[in-house]
Amino acid sequence: MSDDQIVLGPTSYGKASVRLAKVTRDGARHSLRELSVDVALEGDFADCYERGDNRAMPATDTMRNIVYVTAHEHPLDSPESYGLALAERLLATGPTVRRARVRIVEHGWARLDAGGRPHDHAFIREAGDGVAIVVADGAGAEVSAGVENVLVLKTTASGWSDFHRDAFTTLPETDDRILATMLSAEWAYGPHAGLNFAGLWRDVRAQLLASFADHYSPSVQHTLFRMGRAVLERFPAVRRVRLTMPNKHHLLFNMAPFGRDNRNEIFHVTSEPFGLIEGVVERKAE
Amino acid sequence: MSDDQIVLGPTSYGKASVRLAKVTRDGARHSLRELSVDVALEGDFADCYERGDNRAMPATDTMRNIVYVTAHEHPLDSPESYGLALAERLLATGPTVRRARVRIVEHGWARLDAGGRPHDHAFIREAGDGVAIVVADGAGAEVSAGVENVLVLKTTASGWSDFHRDAFTTLPETDDRILATMLSAEWAYGPHAGLNFAGLWRDVRAQLLASFADHYSPSVQHTLFRMGRAVLERFPAVRRVRLTMPNKHHLLFNMAPFGRDNRNEIFHVTSEPFGLIEGVVERKAE
Amino acid sequence: MSDDQIVLGPTSYGKASVRLAKVTRDGARHSLRELSVDVALEGDFADCYERGDNRAMPATDTMRNIVYVTAHEHPLDSPESYGLALAERLLATGPTVRRARVRIVEHGWARLDAGGRPHDHAFIREAGDGVAIVVADGAGAEVSAGVENVLVLKTTASGWSDFHRDAFTTLPETDDRILATMLSAEWAYGPHAGLNFAGLWRDVRAQLLASFADHYSPSVQHTLFRMGRAVLERFPAVRRVRLTMPNKHHLLFNMAPFGRDNRNEIFHVTSEPFGLIEGVVERKAE
Amino acid sequence: MSDDQIVLGPTSYGKASVRLAKVTRDGARHSLRELSVDVALEGDFADCYERGDNRAMPATDTMRNIVYVTAHEHPLDSPESYGLALAERLLATGPTVRRARVRIVEHGWARLDAGGRPHDHAFIREAGDGVAIVVADGAGAEVSAGVENVLVLKTTASGWSDFHRDAFTTLPETDDRILATMLSAEWAYGPHAGLNFAGLWRDVRAQLLASFADHYSPSVQHTLFRMGRAVLERFPAVRRVRLTMPNKHHLLFNMAPFGRDNRNEIFHVTSEPFGLIEGVVERKAE
Repeated sequence: MSDDQIVLGPTSYGKASVRLAKVTRDGARHSLRELSVDVALEGDFADCYERGDNRAMPATDTMRNIVYVTAHEHPLDSPESYGLALAERLLATGPTVRRARVRIVEHGWARLDAGGRPHDHAFIREAGDGVAIVVADGAGAEVSAGVENVLVLKTTASGWSDFHRDAFTTLPETDDRILATMLSAEWAYGPHAGLNFAGLWRDVRAQLLASFADHYSPSVQHTLFRMGRAVLERFPAVRRVRLTMPNKHHLLFNMAPFGRDNRNEIFHVTSEPFGLIEGVVERKAE
Repeated sequence: MSDDQIVLGPTSYGKASVRLAKVTRDGARHSLRELSVDVALEGDFADCYERGDNRAMPATDTMRNIVYVTAHEHPLDSPESYGLALAERLLATGPTVRRARVRIVEHGWARLDAGGRPHDHAFIREAGDGVAIVVADGAGAEVSAGVENVLVLKTTASGWSDFHRDAFTTLPETDDRILATMLSAEWAYGPHAGLNFAGLWRDVRAQLLASFADHYSPSVQHTLFRMGRAVLERFPAVRRVRLTMPNKHHLLFNMAPFGRDNRNEIFHVTSEPFGLIEGVVERKAE
Repeated sequence: MSDDQIVLGPTSYGKASVRLAKVTRDGARHSLRELSVDVALEGDFADCYERGDNRAMPATDTMRNIVYVTAHEHPLDSPESYGLALAERLLATGPTVRRARVRIVEHGWARLDAGGRPHDHAFIREAGDGVAIVVADGAGAEVSAGVENVLVLKTTASGWSDFHRDAFTTLPETDDRILATMLSAEWAYGPHAGLNFAGLWRDVRAQLLASFADHYSPSVQHTLFRMGRAVLERFPAVRRVRLTMPNKHHLLFNMAPFGRDNRNEIFHVTSEPFGLIEGVVERKAE
Repeated sequence: MSDDQIVLGPTSYGKASVRLAKVTRDGARHSLRELSVDVALEGDFADCYERGDNRAMPATDTMRNIVYVTAHEHPLDSPESYGLALAERLLATGPTVRRARVRIVEHGWARLDAGGRPHDHAFIREAGDGVAIVVADGAGAEVSAGVENVLVLKTTASGWSDFHRDAFTTLPETDDRILATMLSAEWAYGPHAGLNFAGLWRDVRAQLLASFADHYSPSVQHTLFRMGRAVLERFPAVRRVRLTMPNKHHLLFNMAPFGRDNRNEIFHVTSEPFGLIEGVVERKAE
């Protein structure tokens, strides 16, 4: 078999887990953002892969520098706007770069409560991360936002019944269970000029949480759909929502051997295995 | 060498990472606690270790059952009081058990904000965990409380200067740096009858955070001492505080190669290596 | 905005991290396999997502049962063949299931060396995992195999020079560095009837490792390509190789402040950030 | 309450997770060691903790430098001997340092098998880590060695029966189960002058593994004792062995609902909760 039947397919390369903090000062009052940034380039890199010729290749170390320098000159008012600036700069790094992908995870910091007052320069890490994704090429850029590691739980108003049964089914039906999920959501914006990314992020996140809680859930699947639909109904700027909802099972602990009746009070929390429910809700194509 | 010169030293055994959630209902308003419990027994287990005779040994599976059953019958008003009940029951499990150790980590859940109102039965996981430790033997029980995984940060009012230098020292002095630490603290109570564990936990935690932020920090070490001292000064029920403060270094990113001046704005966040500062602050023995 | 403009996009659901061990006995000589299995279904689940009607939905708990039962009746001679049996059964679970995806990670166990002899029934966990992936629908099944968590390193015969430089480039060129990567590879088979999956897996893995080491590496990218090409050249059954090679940087520690010359002897090992090089090598479409 | 009743208790500080690799060259044949080093100092640091006076305090950054410089000048023939050199240097870093503690984890690398031959400069990471611990003060140094993250398993010759039962006991007895543990062991040497640390480490580790496998295990506890005793019997240089053996439960999967008989073939592998068995075996004090 000769080499010319074996070809390079899709490739990308970049720098991952570039961690940065930016402090912005307004007199004695400081603001803090902490980001973990992944960047990757796509393009015509065949000379490097196939022939070991690096001349068109920016180093991933250079990309790392660009992450920090861009953060320095950008106001960092939102991860999305910073991501757009970063992607634009990355597109210009090499002669054969065709596309830049930026994924930013923001770790939230709240002001420390010092005797009832939010502190000027002390902060405490919050749970749950924000996400911003920018994919840019010569024709423009697409922006998505999201959340991850948001653990939410309902102690009631959730069930799983009337499902398909066969010879391998042992699970009983229930109309009252704990529903817990480590929510990941990613929503894609349509045309993004003029959007208030920071405000939208807060509002979409709040809507997702409200929709998680506002109904009796007959399945994680249905709740996922309702969450995505609610976002699309309320936010015209959003064109698609992708949700990943692992079912963090809380199993009723069997108290019968001890002569006790466990009325949905004591649960055994498990890590694995877990149900994994994924889905997209989007606007119908014209 | 004959066997009788080789002897059994200290031993313990138990069950670790027993995870439970308890839902308490007050009409439509539910409360939720989630705990991860480690239990261990000490005692005269030589027959088992040395001769393979299990007759005096409770199974770790039995300990697990006790964790759940005790959680069922206990109001779980605080992890400390539950820990006391659990330790007492564990002490009674086997004929040769002499001591029971319980370590409880509480993962905090806040009510979900649903359109500005705290929800009755939906919750969101908070960052930072609580800890309760009970060690009991025939003579009584000692109770400690604590926090772990609490990430706090100051963007200024921290330095490290005028330290010892030798041939291996390259670090420059600074009087303005970011100070960040993943705080672990454990405080031991004296006589615990009548203590309001839940209220004390909230107040000691708040004091630790306030003391982290309320001064110029010349070193993590000095800040650690101030935090411990403040707790002891304010809370007579506490007799000793142990603090573990890894220094999560935020290093100024060098912008000089890019003709830029980084005035404490952009930091490179690192995971390793990290400074690790540990210390105990306690009341002088009479 | 009315609901009918908002539609369900792609979905899937299943059970993840189903962990199982199977012991097979040949007299006193036991064999052991340990797998972690993810299964997911795709199909027409709109009634569930959109309307909360579960009647066509197998429970993820049922899928878990199928994982164990299929492992019980299957010889488990290879994860790939077990994956095929599992996918076939999953396809039959519900009336609207159209596709089943199975991803199996095998954690390797070697026989324990007991005084120079491999033990009959004692084992020790090895580093590096195997992977088998099966995607099946009514038309047939596609099988891939792979490895992950395989950490390999070369102490020399690796460089990175003559790359693209711009205003953000600070990295010096080198023709002698450490190259380390946590290798993930996934290779897709063409028609799989009659393939010796277990033998192929061993041989492809060995080829990947040999190709990692057998040349001067001018870049991770070029080494990635050579590894993929070598597999395709040697194994006609393989039609495509996808490689993910994070660059686990080992940075020369600067000894100059201590009057020492570090001739590629002492390296600072870092976790983050890391270069991430990904690519596909495949046969040219006819 | 005045300050003089609140005092500083035990403290220590240092640098953790200092990661280094050392390449040693013998012509074309390279050797590689990779270590993760924790160092900590104890001493009279009260001026720093209590009064914010850093003058007697070496920086943890200086300690990090010492880790690398000492690795540069030391042959690194064993982590233990390197740890001794490192501790000695750390003791000399500050005027009030009284004790230095060094904990080294070695991540093992095996030569890559390239077409049946061990490669000169390519390596693959092995499972299971080595440990060396040195604690030194003015009077001398104590050396311990160990292993961690060594996962071992027996498919038979293990049981748990005839144990203590009470009202909370539901576990059935068994005389044939899987026994799996993530072994951590630490053995303390007596006088260490002239010891062949590298050879002893290999031999003690091999003895621990052989003793894990060489008998019917009526309990993890008894097996732990036998492992420790075997080491002490065979190695006069060892004076104490501490073993930590989490019981990684493999639970028989119940096949009865599917009309199948699971004859110790298919197991559900669990992460939590887990039994945790710890103990010390030592020589009787004179």
